[in-house]
Amino acid sequence: MSEGKLLIVGTLAFDAIETPFGKTDKILGGAATFIGLAASQFKVDSAIVSVVGDDFPQEYLDMLSDRNIDLSGVEIVKGGKTFYWKGRYHNDLNSRDTLATELNTLADFNPVVPENYKDADVVMLGNLHPNIQMSVINQMKKRPKLVILDTMNFWMDNTWDELMEVIKHIDVLTINDEEARQMTNEYSLVKAAVKIQEKGPKFLVIKKGEHGALLFHENQIFFAPALPLEEVFDPTGAGDTFAGGFAGYLAATKNLSFENMKNAVVHASNLASFSVERFGTERMQHLKNVEVNKRLQEFQQLTQFDIDLQ
Amino acid sequence: MSEGKLLIVGTLAFDAIETPFGKTDKILGGAATFIGLAASQFKVDSAIVSVVGDDFPQEYLDMLSDRNIDLSGVEIVKGGKTFYWKGRYHNDLNSRDTLATELNTLADFNPVVPENYKDADVVMLGNLHPNIQMSVINQMKKRPKLVILDTMNFWMDNTWDELMEVIKHIDVLTINDEEARQMTNEYSLVKAAVKIQEKGPKFLVIKKGEHGALLFHENQIFFAPALPLEEVFDPTGAGDTFAGGFAGYLAATKNLSFENMKNAVVHASNLASFSVERFGTERMQHLKNVEVNKRLQEFQQLTQFDIDLQ
Repeated sequence: MSEGKLLIVGTLAFDAIETPFGKTDKILGGAATFIGLAASQFKVDSAIVSVVGDDFPQEYLDMLSDRNIDLSGVEIVKGGKTFYWKGRYHNDLNSRDTLATELNTLADFNPVVPENYKDADVVMLGNLHPNIQMSVINQMKKRPKLVILDTMNFWMDNTWDELMEVIKHIDVLTINDEEARQMTNEYSLVKAAVKIQEKGPKFLVIKKGEHGALLFHENQIFFAPALPLEEVFDPTGAGDTFAGGFAGYLAATKNLSFENMKNAVVHASNLASFSVERFGTERMQHLKNVEVNKRLQEFQQLTQFDIDLQ
Repeated sequence: MSEGKLLIVGTLAFDAIETPFGKTDKILGGAATFIGLAASQFKVDSAIVSVVGDDFPQEYLDMLSDRNIDLSGVEIVKGGKTFYWKGRYHNDLNSRDTLATELNTLADFNPVVPENYKDADVVMLGNLHPNIQMSVINQMKKRPKLVILDTMNFWMDNTWDELMEVIKHIDVLTINDEEARQMTNEYSLVKAAVKIQEKGPKFLVIKKGEHGALLFHENQIFFAPALPLEEVFDPTGAGDTFAGGFAGYLAATKNLSFENMKNAVVHASNLASFSVERFGTERMQHLKNVEVNKRLQEFQQLTQFDIDLQ
């Protein structure tokens, strides 16, 4: 069986991060980076479509290529600068202030899907302008088996109509709890999930950070907690790591049933629990298979029980 | 096999509640009421130790007696008034303002454990002054197999030393996440759990409301989510219902292993999910076995998955 093809669209970026535990200069960041690293934990043939300036270090690109991620869809703009984000987390790590956002080359990003990924099985549309996400869908030669879209409140505030258009064409929407509430004006996530499914996506993942993630499909609900950690060091990229684990697992297993999506959510939560343990991508870059499997067992002990139902 | 004996200590009360959905006059409330109703879902021989004034309606007492709850330890003070609490929930239902608290007969409550419950297997100490909780422990003829204690920030603020003394003598502490943080000055619940176990209780349940509940014991952790609901109508008594389900299940099954405590947490979360659907005790008073079992199945579907671990 050939490996499932996964197309990833998202930012490659520089992040500068402050947390209560320390601060970094510009380090490797970006949604596509975290998504790609998480997906590379699975047997999957993945490619990233993105844009950077020529200030983006070759070693970062090599690190991704070394993980069998195809980068032929990454445009390198000569003389351009790479997207840069700087943020400071509050003491509880649940909220943050953006200190700087420099779009740079991202401002004119025109994604071009490489020819041999126009038949990808799974497309993971990272958080970007909905028009860019739509452009990628339109370039596919055939309807992918699964299109997953991540977005955030910024696009709801500024490009509502475009966002509503693109989510008509996707299968899975991943957003956080506050965004689900904003999108639907419903406080109850159960009610919000019904309304969001009416807008297009038949599956919905609501990410609740330290409070876990919910998967909705028709009248079915699955929940995976976040693994309780001694310390959350840097939440940057946790949501993207989650999305990458989810997409990567589904592309690798080629099974899009709700039951298998439960497994995908568990793998996704598991990987996200590593991502937050160090600054940026550091933990994900050096993550070993044996660590992943050990923590999956902890996950099982954390959540599985055996009640006799009458 | 005779039924496990469960001794419940806590308030019988009048509550007046305002939520975004409506308001009530004085209705039946109190920790012992919710605990007793939840525990009565299991085959258990339970008794309540409490105090009321003679304004407490006989029909409330009959309702509890009808569920095989022994009330010989409920003191009825002639001419006295029953403990009364009035509160208003905010729109998100996660926080509330106390509008009135009248201790009344509770101010001089001197608990007397009935002779034939001094050998109870499980003692559930509802949220009360720690000296009252300690007095109950001291009246037991032999060390109960399991002593569970519920408390709140008020007792941490006002009776810290007394609280620290009583929790040396218990097996399970149940508190919410904010209280666990306040008790230990640790934001991480994993770290807080370690510190709390050093204070006495070998087991700890941290209740996170809509975000579920964590069970800690040595290096083991179990998590049960709250069932996602279309509407939380009135959170009053959810924590007590949880505690009653937990205590009742353990008293009925007489199995105090960590594995069985996982089941107790699941049953407890399941019962709490009903409690919040109506004002006060209304839902718990009319809860049917078939409803409980159906929702347990939903709980299983919500949380159980099947991943092959290498």
